Formats: sequence, structure tokens, C-alpha cells
Amino acid sequence: MALEYELLNENVKKCQYAVRGELYLRASELQKEGKKIIFTNVGNPHALGQKPLTFPRQVVALCQAPFLLDDPNVGMLFPADAIARAKHYLSLTSGGLGIIIIFTKNSLLYPVIKKVILLLSLSVLSGAYSDSRGLPGVRKEVAEFIQRRDGYPSDPELIFLTDGASKGVMQILNCVIRGEGDGILVPVPQYPLYSATISLLGGSLVPYYLDESENWGLDVNNLRQSVAQARSQGISVRAMVIINPGNPTGQCLSEANLKEILRFCYNEKLVLLGDEVYQQNIYQDERPFISSKKVLMEMGSPFNKEVQLVSFHTVSKGYWGECGQRGGYFEMTNIPPRVVEEIYKVASIALSPNVSAQIFMGLMVSPPKPGDISYDQFARESKGILESLRRRAKIMTDGFNSCKNVVCNFTEGAMYSFPQIRLPTGALQAAKQAGKVPDVFYCLKLLEATGISTVPGSGFGQKEGVFHLRTTILPAEEEMPEIMDSFKKFNDEFMTQYDNGFGYSRM
Amino acid sequence: MALEYELLNENVKKCQYAVRGELYLRASELQKEGKKIIFTNVGNPHALGQKPLTFPRQVVALCQAPFLLDDPNVGMLFPADAIARAKHYLSLTSGGLGIIIIFTKNSLLYPVIKKVILLLSLSVLSGAYSDSRGLPGVRKEVAEFIQRRDGYPSDPELIFLTDGASKGVMQILNCVIRGEGDGILVPVPQYPLYSATISLLGGSLVPYYLDESENWGLDVNNLRQSVAQARSQGISVRAMVIINPGNPTGQCLSEANLKEILRFCYNEKLVLLGDEVYQQNIYQDERPFISSKKVLMEMGSPFNKEVQLVSFHTVSKGYWGECGQRGGYFEMTNIPPRVVEEIYKVASIALSPNVSAQIFMGLMVSPPKPGDISYDQFARESKGILESLRRRAKIMTDGFNSCKNVVCNFTEGAMYSFPQIRLPTGALQAAKQAGKVPDVFYCLKLLEATGISTVPGSGFGQKEGVFHLRTTILPAEEEMPEIMDSFKKFNDEFMTQYDNGFGYSRM
Repeated sequence: MALEYELLNENVKKCQYAVRGELYLRASELQKEGKKIIFTNVGNPHALGQKPLTFPRQVVALCQAPFLLDDPNVGMLFPADAIARAKHYLSLTSGGLGIIIIFTKNSLLYPVIKKVILLLSLSVLSGAYSDSRGLPGVRKEVAEFIQRRDGYPSDPELIFLTDGASKGVMQILNCVIRGEGDGILVPVPQYPLYSATISLLGGSLVPYYLDESENWGLDVNNLRQSVAQARSQGISVRAMVIINPGNPTGQCLSEANLKEILRFCYNEKLVLLGDEVYQQNIYQDERPFISSKKVLMEMGSPFNKEVQLVSFHTVSKGYWGECGQRGGYFEMTNIPPRVVEEIYKVASIALSPNVSAQIFMGLMVSPPKPGDISYDQFARESKGILESLRRRAKIMTDGFNSCKNVVCNFTEGAMYSFPQIRLPTGALQAAKQAGKVPDVFYCLKLLEATGISTVPGSGFGQKEGVFHLRTTILPAEEEMPEIMDSFKKFNDEFMTQYDNGFGYSRM
Repeated sequence: MALEYELLNENVKKCQYAVRGELYLRASELQKEGKKIIFTNVGNPHALGQKPLTFPRQVVALCQAPFLLDDPNVGMLFPADAIARAKHYLSLTSGGLGIIIIFTKNSLLYPVIKKVILLLSLSVLSGAYSDSRGLPGVRKEVAEFIQRRDGYPSDPELIFLTDGASKGVMQILNCVIRGEGDGILVPVPQYPLYSATISLLGGSLVPYYLDESENWGLDVNNLRQSVAQARSQGISVRAMVIINPGNPTGQCLSEANLKEILRFCYNEKLVLLGDEVYQQNIYQDERPFISSKKVLMEMGSPFNKEVQLVSFHTVSKGYWGECGQRGGYFEMTNIPPRVVEEIYKVASIALSPNVSAQIFMGLMVSPPKPGDISYDQFARESKGILESLRRRAKIMTDGFNSCKNVVCNFTEGAMYSFPQIRLPTGALQAAKQAGKVPDVFYCLKLLEATGISTVPGSGFGQKEGVFHLRTTILPAEEEMPEIMDSFKKFNDEFMTQYDNGFGYSRM
């Protein structure tokens, strides 16, 4: 029968890149045996004890239970501004229609569609399917947020809400990739969503290497080489992915670097996919987050009218960390109406993104303002999380850099540290004997000795012969010094044990 | 650039089957002009005023705002059993880890994985990613529900939670379809999810026709013909879809019919996809819903050990109608562990289904029991909705059958009526002159005259030269008689107007 392994879609079987299971599985076994494990393998803040922000949870709870608004006691449990905000979202979602349109090919209808949808789908109950692009009222709030952030207009009609950013990336890549002759430029190291999705869709991943010695910056010459090499293999390079701030690498791209990238995309006719899900997670002041959209708009003609850009955001990251809600959006720039229509059509097949997460997205882009009843609490909670993340980024980077043969770029943003580990040749030999990739060997020893569960750099891609590991910076701040001490003790002993005097892996 | 219409993935452009926009768009325009429109085009109950069930919304609200549980006033707004149930789900989702595993190919690890995952992922906060298959505690509740329903064991390890049933269908078809040589048997008329997804994945839809004269029953001889014809065209038929109760056709398959289907799948080595999302929506007592799984288990050896079956369910349909939450599950029967692992891997790429909808699913399969504080209210609300749907199904079918040249099978289940309209040849000519498909012509005239917005049968597929329309049975019960009177008046006038004495479209 069709669901036998041998008969499955080969692309499904092929997509084997990714966060590998071996480390995690061993950690799980050890935990079962009673060992304390520090799970730093996934950027999942609430799972490591981060508390949700109160105000958005209050609003969403009221939207889920709108009958509470008629209860005279509602004010005993909910502040007035959360009640008002819930009424706002319920007004965006009530009395309505439940619209699913799958367009006919006749794109003459497009202007009509634009008009009637905005009018009609203002109104779908929270238990009802929304418009397949998300609630128009929330998309308007997202557009206003982008406009405030960048200083350039943003059109709600070009913003689609999604069940998390990953789903959005998959939707766009599905439109771009026609077969294995289509290549997508992806940074190495990369977040494995990209490699896995490209495999699943039967396309080709074209790697470009981030420069570790330049704080994981992006060298456009390197990009050119990657494209030239892919073309020599008959691959048509069609799109480029940037992850800014970087996962797993933590860098923030500079404005100058973004300009080079956009100019490169213009020259090479590449769609730029800007994975900007960590835009709120910035831990230094020298290089603040700047969006690809803003840079593109500042570059002026012909770039701002021609470079195709899709930017992604989410409620899972930032300091909200609402991973389990599955909410995200993407904004399209310079994508023709007819293509927007096709993307809408495909989104319609699965009806609509979940409505609660849409409301979270609305709240994230329009949080309480000074003067609002909940503002002080919201600001205090937000500041607490962000400042702690900033301190943890520093503790972790400094900790790694105090270790023998470990070099770590500062985590400028995102949620990860990605230190390079220069392994003694003795360790390389021992790994070979154990049948392990060297960084897997190191991470397993680390796990056994300390309980720290990391992901080997080979899970993300790295230059041949160079080794890393990835940790999140998410363990509780008070535990951080002890974790880093424990790491240092392990590492320095490891280096002594395996140092056979014949040097180290290359940098 | 890649996101130009001409350069898009052709499968994206091709998936144009579906609920067509023309009727809906015209309805929207008319509404804008101030006309009262009765939207019966989409099965979206809350959008037509159905109120959510109180108890599940209370529980989910508390799960979203767990800090309310520490508030001494919580009992003023929430009953004790909702509080207890929220604590139950929070215990399933707290203190945890946030597990994402993308397996290595080494399937020797599978038994280990099974064990450690059950142990570890008992625990992920509701703001955290869950296991990519959904929370183990909820999957256990689903398995218990299936076991109670069918009287046969169900394994939580073979149940995956999804963001709605559609997403589950897409996941499974993605594993099955390797290219256009792979065919999927789909009923005609069908719900366009299937045609659209098969197109998107580049496979071939192999239609089999439901027999309108047998109350939309399924004739296995017809199936054989469809398979033979597809094979003569070089298509390898790999899977078969049944929708039971039917959408748009509303029939409930009999046990005998299901047995024939399963025997057919066994003989032809087809995976059966059982779309059973309307299993709670039953409006007669002669032919209750019976699951494909139960029938398969009752058939005994060799069928129960060999036929590959994937069954789908959702929180969107039933009488809950929680469409906007996007929650569903699928259960796999006779799918080898290695394939389950592959399906898990692909699910992992998008991290996890949304956690709130997982809790809704848990609540749907384990509702309040007699004796619980909320039981009476829950039972009263449930009964109110279901009994009203049953009455509405009858009012609608009877209404259609009282109209000239309209024949409608009784809506045994699901949410739709799918009457056949025998059009006078005068109407066929007028449609041709207007450049419209005849059923679109009829539905547009209906809309202009009455405000009733339906979907022409051509959106679902029908035999050549036979015409239908689909309406939901979801308008408010008190409005139903007026709607049917208005339909009858329009229809009978239409038939008189276009009857040129040269007969009617065929049956």
C-alpha cells in the first residue's frame, strides 16, 4: 500500500537535515535515569519557565470567553483596558460571514475583491474561520506597526497572517520552487526550517557561508561565488534567505550589509526572504535591528520599486515567546497583485490561520500605551524579560570566551550562542573511533558530564573541519553562572584530556 | 524575479478547482449596496450566529490566563469543574521542555523515541511549542474517545493533532503523492480541499461518482471502472478518499457500503483516507455514523491487519463549530512505524499545532459527564444546537422538494443540502447567451432575486449536464421557513419563465 516506506514521496524521506535527535535522545534517557538536564536545545522560552505577559493573556482569555463581558463581576478579574481591548477584537470578529474565496483565474476581479473583502470580512466571530489572510482589522494593526517602525507606508492588503512564521516561509517557498533546478540561497549556519522545506518541496539549497571572523557578517563576494557555482551546476538561483538577527549565529546585520544584499538581489533578480522573527531580541546598542523593508525603501529607485521582498515575523519569539499560540505574519513588497492572489488562493485551501493567535499578533504590534491602566505592569514585565535576556547573552558569551579553545561571537540578537570549539586532534581521533562526528562527540561528553543539552553545529551547517555548538540563552538567569562554571570545568578538562600535542581543528 | 506570475510553481497556479468566487463576489457587492444577503456558502456556524458552548470556552480562557487560578475571585466567574479541567490541561502542559525532534534516518531509534517522548513531553507550557504531534495527554484522551466510540483499542502514538483536519489531509497526501502518475480516488461531488491539494502536490485526481438516485451512495462497480480507466491512462491509483457524512452531499454511508469500500481498498492496495469530520452531525436514526476504523476492525483478518487507513476529525464541525480555533486530529491504522516516523518528521518542520486548539480537542472528546457541575448546561446547549440542526435539515430538504423541478436527497448528516435543479432548455440557452455555466446562471438569478448566496454544483463536480447547488443548513431556524418560501417563489417563477416546452436538463 502507498504508505509503505519504500513507496513514500522521496522528498518527504529526503528532508533529513535538521536538529538531530541523538543529543536530545541521550539527554532524555539521562533525565529518565534521574539526572538533572538543562535543555538549551530549542528556543522555547515558556518551556524554560518564562512567564507569559499578563495583558495579552487577559485579552485573549476574554475573547475566548466573551460571555464574561456580560458578567457584572468581570472587573474583579480583568482590568478595564483588557476588557476594552477584548471588545475591540470581538468587534473585529463578530456578526460576520466566514469568508473563503478561492479565486477564479480571472484577475480582472482583483480590484473588486480587494474592496469587498475589506468591507465584508471585518466581521467573523472568533469561533469562525476568518478571511484566509487573517482578520482585516489585525492586518491593519500590523501595517500601522510596520509604518511606525520603518517610517514608510505599509499596505494591510499585502500582509497575510499565518499559523507561525514557519508556515509563512513554507507558503512562499512553495510558490517559488518548481523543481530541483530551482535554487534558494541559504546562510550556513542556518536554521533547519530552510533546508528541510527546500528538500520537501524538491528544490536545491544553495549555501552561502557567514563569516565567523566578521561576527557572522555576510560577505557579498561569497554570495557571488555561491551563485556562480550553483549556475555552473545548472541551477537557477531564484531566492535568497537572510535570518536577521541570526539563528543560530546571533548577529545583527548592519544597514550597509543589508544594502549590499538588496543590491545583490536586484542585480541577480532574486526574491529576498527576510526572516526577521528575532527583531525584538537585541542585546547591544551599536547595531540595532533594521528591517530589510526600511533599507529597501531608503535605497530609492529603482530598488524600492523592483526588489521583491517577503518579510516574516511571529509571536513566538521577541520577548513574548508565545510559541504555542502559532501566530505570525508576512509582508510582501513589490509582489504583483496576480501573485498575491495566487498566494491567497493557496492559503484558502486550509481555510484560515487560528484566530486567537491573530489576536496575539494584533496585541504584539499594538501593546498598551503610557497612560493605559495596564501599561506599567506590561512595561515592567517586558523590561524584566528583555534586560534579563541581555544580561544572559553577556554572561554566556563571556563564559564561553573564558574557556580554553572556545571562541564565541557576542550574541547581538536572537536567542542563541554559537561558540566555536577548537578540538584537539586527539579528540578528533577519539570521535572517529567512537563513530561520531567530532562536535557530536564533544556535545555528548558535555551532556554526560554536566547535563547541559546542546545541539552540535553540524545540525545547522558549518565550514568543513570547523566545529560549534548551539545553546539558547534561555535558562533562568540565576542558574546561568553555575551552568557556565560547569561548562568551563568540563571543557578545560576535555581539552587537557584530548590534547596530544598535535594541534587543533582549524578556525 | 521569481515571484512573477509567469515564473510561479505551475502546481500553485493549477489548483483552481474549488468554491468559485463569482457567486460570493456578487453577493458581497449586493450586500454593499444595502441588500440583505443570506450567506449559506460556507459551513461556518459561529459566523451565522451559533453561540459557542460555554464550558469549553471557560476552560480554554483559564488555560490562556492561568494566573486567574490564583485569584481568590476566580470562582465568581468560573464554575469549579471548569477550573479543575483547566488545571488538568495546565498540568499536561507545564514545567516542560519544548520538544522538537527531527529524526535521524536510523529507525532503530524508534522504540527509544516512543518511550522517551511519552515520558518527557507530558510537559510543555501552553505558551510553549508542544510535541509536534500534539500534547501526549490530549492524544491519550482522543484514543480513549475512539475506543469508547468503536469498541476497539486506539493507540495515542498513532494519533497526531493538527491545525484543523485540512492540514492533516494535506500532510498525508504529501506523503502519498510522488508525481502526476500517482492518482487519488476522490468522490464527485467532493469537497474542493481534495482537488486543490492534489493539484498543489502535482498528483492526479481520479474521480468516482456518488449515486444521487441511491441517496448519494457509493457503488463499488463504479469505483472499479474509475480505477480501470485511470490505469489505462498510466496512473497508479494509490489512495481513496471518502467523506462520511458527505460534503456537499450529506449522506451517511452504511456499514455494508463501508465494508465493500474497505474490501476494495484491500484488493486494490489503496490507502483509505476517511474524512469523518461531520461524525457528530447526524439528522436521522436509520443510518447512524459508523467509523471506517470500527468497520475495518469488525471485518477481522486479513483486513484489520492490512488495510491502511487514516481517519480525520476536527473541532470545526460537529455541533461545536469551533472553526476559528483550527484544531483537528488524524488516527493511523496499519501504517508502519517507519512511515509514522516520517510523518512526524515532516510535522516537526512547522514545530507544533496550536496548543489552545489541542485543548479544545481534548475537551471535545471528553466533555462534562452527568453529575459534573457544568453537565446540565453543556447538555442543554449541545442538545439545543443538534436538535435545531436536525429540524433545519428537514425544513430545508422538504422545502426544496416542494419546488418545481427540484429534487433533494435528505440531509442525513453534515451541514449541507445539495438539491438537483432540472433546468428548462430555455434556461440552458439563456445561460449560454450570458456566458455562464447553467448552474452559475441559476444561482446568480437566485441571489439577485432573494439574497440567498449559494455555491453552484459545478464547484464540487457533478455529472455532465446535471445541475445542483449547495447551501448550508446553518441559517437561524426561525428564518428558515421564510428563506425556503422565498426560494420556492423564485424557483417556480424561474421555471415558468424559462420553460420553452423543449424539456429539461437530464437527471
